[in-house]
Amino acid sequence: MRILGLDPGLRVTGWGIVEAAGNRLSHVADGVVTSDDRAALADRLAQLHDGVMAVIERFNPAEAAVEETFVNRNPLSTLKLGQARGVVMLAPARCGLVVAEYTPNAVKKAVVGRGHAEKAQIALMVRTLLPGADPTRTDASDALAVAICHAHLRASQRALMAGARP
Amino acid sequence: MRILGLDPGLRVTGWGIVEAAGNRLSHVADGVVTSDDRAALADRLAQLHDGVMAVIERFNPAEAAVEETFVNRNPLSTLKLGQARGVVMLAPARCGLVVAEYTPNAVKKAVVGRGHAEKAQIALMVRTLLPGADPTRTDASDALAVAICHAHLRASQRALMAGARP
Repeated sequence: MRILGLDPGLRVTGWGIVEAAGNRLSHVADGVVTSDDRAALADRLAQLHDGVMAVIERFNPAEAAVEETFVNRNPLSTLKLGQARGVVMLAPARCGLVVAEYTPNAVKKAVVGRGHAEKAQIALMVRTLLPGADPTRTDASDALAVAICHAHLRASQRALMAGARP
Repeated sequence: MRILGLDPGLRVTGWGIVEAAGNRLSHVADGVVTSDDRAALADRLAQLHDGVMAVIERFNPAEAAVEETFVNRNPLSTLKLGQARGVVMLAPARCGLVVAEYTPNAVKKAVVGRGHAEKAQIALMVRTLLPGADPTRTDASDALAVAICHAHLRASQRALMAGARP
């Protein structure tokens, strides 16, 4: 099953596609969608949305996951991020995909093994868990991390449910 | 020319359609689009987006306008509002409409005549400027107000440009 991970941002939105077969994960693709910061806000939002739609059409993921946004101290940054996050999450929802949300700590725990990890450690573990993956941008690496988190938690949910029904 | 005014919110998004013929304005329709607060965030965003798309398809406005969001002290509220605002603004942008943004003060000045006005005064002036309009929700009334603001400022921009080219 293919999982789409998303790391939304108004200027740069990271995306990553991971294939999950049972407990085994493999890297399919990753990249970023950008918006033109000289364009009007509504047009930038349309650029992000169209970019994510193109990724979904190309790779046909079955589920999507996004990190619960870090709420910035600067309200204007929070508003910008919210707007980007809205249109980015809308793309998989419009395609009928479930969009799971995970806290930054849950993502770190799934990828690095503990809730407090540095950016660099996450990027290193993403490369270790997904042989062949070599994301050049942190945004794409973070998107792969949230896809890995979703794959792990889906797998353990299935294991729990299997145990509950003997 | 028909103008779509929008007042975005995650729970309730107000909309209003105003017809502008030169300096004369008339009311076409108004209402609200709501999202189910028991649904997942991505699904709520899709409900709002689809609702605004349906309004655009039904009334076929030529331009859209939205108020620049009041940035809340509560970062979580700001994030929620940002997400709603993103998908609401995306709808006219995806249809190729210009989406103008106005500060709350600009809207108040256009509708009431001064930058500091109470909600009730705005609602009263919307009814006065648009005979026949009787929005039952503040969200719809606020959406009509931003549409009126856009109509006024468009008209004065045209007048200025006409004056500049004798």
